[in-house]
Amino acid sequence: MASSSENPNPEVRKDAVWNRWVIFSPARAKRPSDFKSKSPTDPNPNQQCPFCIGHEHECAPEIFRVPPRDPEWKIRVIQNLYPALSRTLPEPQYAPSGSLLTGFGFHDVVIETPVHSVQLCDLAPPEIGRVFLAYTERIQQLASHESIQYVQVFKNHGASAGASMSHSHSQIMALPIIPPSVSARLASMKDHFDQTGKCFICEIQRENLLIDPSTNFFSLVPFAATFPFEIWIVPRYHSAHFHELDAEKAVELGGLLKLMLRKMALQLNNPPFNYMIHTSPLHSNGSELAYSHWFIQIVPQLIGIAGFELGTGCYINPVFPEDAAKVLREVKVPESG
Amino acid sequence: MASSSENPNPEVRKDAVWNRWVIFSPARAKRPSDFKSKSPTDPNPNQQCPFCIGHEHECAPEIFRVPPRDPEWKIRVIQNLYPALSRTLPEPQYAPSGSLLTGFGFHDVVIETPVHSVQLCDLAPPEIGRVFLAYTERIQQLASHESIQYVQVFKNHGASAGASMSHSHSQIMALPIIPPSVSARLASMKDHFDQTGKCFICEIQRENLLIDPSTNFFSLVPFAATFPFEIWIVPRYHSAHFHELDAEKAVELGGLLKLMLRKMALQLNNPPFNYMIHTSPLHSNGSELAYSHWFIQIVPQLIGIAGFELGTGCYINPVFPEDAAKVLREVKVPESG
Repeated sequence: MASSSENPNPEVRKDAVWNRWVIFSPARAKRPSDFKSKSPTDPNPNQQCPFCIGHEHECAPEIFRVPPRDPEWKIRVIQNLYPALSRTLPEPQYAPSGSLLTGFGFHDVVIETPVHSVQLCDLAPPEIGRVFLAYTERIQQLASHESIQYVQVFKNHGASAGASMSHSHSQIMALPIIPPSVSARLASMKDHFDQTGKCFICEIQRENLLIDPSTNFFSLVPFAATFPFEIWIVPRYHSAHFHELDAEKAVELGGLLKLMLRKMALQLNNPPFNYMIHTSPLHSNGSELAYSHWFIQIVPQLIGIAGFELGTGCYINPVFPEDAAKVLREVKVPESG
Repeated sequence: MASSSENPNPEVRKDAVWNRWVIFSPARAKRPSDFKSKSPTDPNPNQQCPFCIGHEHECAPEIFRVPPRDPEWKIRVIQNLYPALSRTLPEPQYAPSGSLLTGFGFHDVVIETPVHSVQLCDLAPPEIGRVFLAYTERIQQLASHESIQYVQVFKNHGASAGASMSHSHSQIMALPIIPPSVSARLASMKDHFDQTGKCFICEIQRENLLIDPSTNFFSLVPFAATFPFEIWIVPRYHSAHFHELDAEKAVELGGLLKLMLRKMALQLNNPPFNYMIHTSPLHSNGSELAYSHWFIQIVPQLIGIAGFELGTGCYINPVFPEDAAKVLREVKVPESG
């Protein structure tokens, strides 16, 4: 059962991290190197933008900025003007057990640059590192709420990836529950640890799936990638909580994320994309910390989700991970930029 | 914790069928009655179409037609020209245990009408009933394969809901695995049965969630609907397997589906949509049959899936189910058509 573009038979692979099946069906697709995005990425290119420097008064309240109190800020963490959860509702005093909770929680926005035309991948590695450190600072603040169970950091880039603002930003959602995908991931990682005594992510299969390595991180296409050209950035060292990232590693991580975003933009024609930071629940116990290992998942939006995926929770990926990894490994990125 | 448009506080509800949380966040949305689709629904309006009567030779092989062998067919069940799974691979002789399977399976297309311009909701209830019976006939054929575990019937209507052909059709995918959402649903329904001795769906909460009843079925918006204006059509009688539907009930089901599709089209401006038939694994044992109960889920495509949903498996629905049910209950459908 070889798996490459030379052998275009479909395969069904189990993703060990979330314990779900993915169908690889290359017969439906063009060649891996021919995938290009057709989606326009800019939801509001020309309009005046409240995220731009000088328009701070048009935004919901600020939580903090980087550098602190500097009118020439580089990053602002603000409240979302249309939050999905409400920070003003009573904080639940109990663990979620029934089927109904008040919508207490936090929904914040991280403005990654003061300049409208600058995208995240245009920033230098230390500047992207500073965005990561802004995430960690906010997560540490949110951890003081006993009822907040999990913090999801994510970025929507481009209208068809869910971004309503074109000014480069990401979002932080603090939840009063452990969300379903996180529970599934922890259960799957616990099973692996119970069986082998090892953290699955520490030993994740790389070989022909590797894209680029750095000192403390590497990027790869996972063995059972849910989406074509999905990329993971994984710390080499064991760490359950993203928010324990230190300043030095943040710069290195910024460099590797920048490289992946530039490769994706060059190879796939600047596609809309999402990235998600998969971390551990805030109040994890000791054993959970042993088998849970944070990583970043980057998903270019190249195909849609339809009835089959909605019905089964099973995804069809037209590009074998080995092929996607090879294509991404070989993208030539110009030195400048 | 009241939940209606009069009280726009967000709420977090657990969907008991799939055991997953949904965030209801009306503050982000317009009024429920103002939801309209902006998506064009027709992926290929003007081109000559292989699904039209007289173009049978342009399609992949036919499996059967209704009526049998009739050149004036009403329905054709054919192979998918670009199948996600391959019927020519060796059939696995073992239960799926590892993390890799050959992509053996079936991927069929049901052409619901010979006429290009006719949509499913234009058909009369007995004609839609005949489409349901074509599904059941094909599922019964597929059940003869020991290695086929589950059959997913689904329909993608409109390009942004994943349809690549505008000629009205649905799809049948026969899988060598029990897909993740089905496992989660069965586990959740088993828990409920073990605790109460009852089938959850037989006793599903209706009250202010009901849209329309018929003799053997009813439609409702579920308590923790994942998507705005999501509709379920549920048999009143306990039945684990959709493919045991009889001819008389198929006509009645056709009438109720037609009513729901017409209400959705009128209220939401002819949105792209998906429907999925949620049934039981083909080779279910006796105890599974007691707690598993088939139903149809209809999802109009009004909002996208972005980083938060990809990361957490948790969905944000801007419309409270009680409000969506009220709006859909009150849609006036003209008698003709």
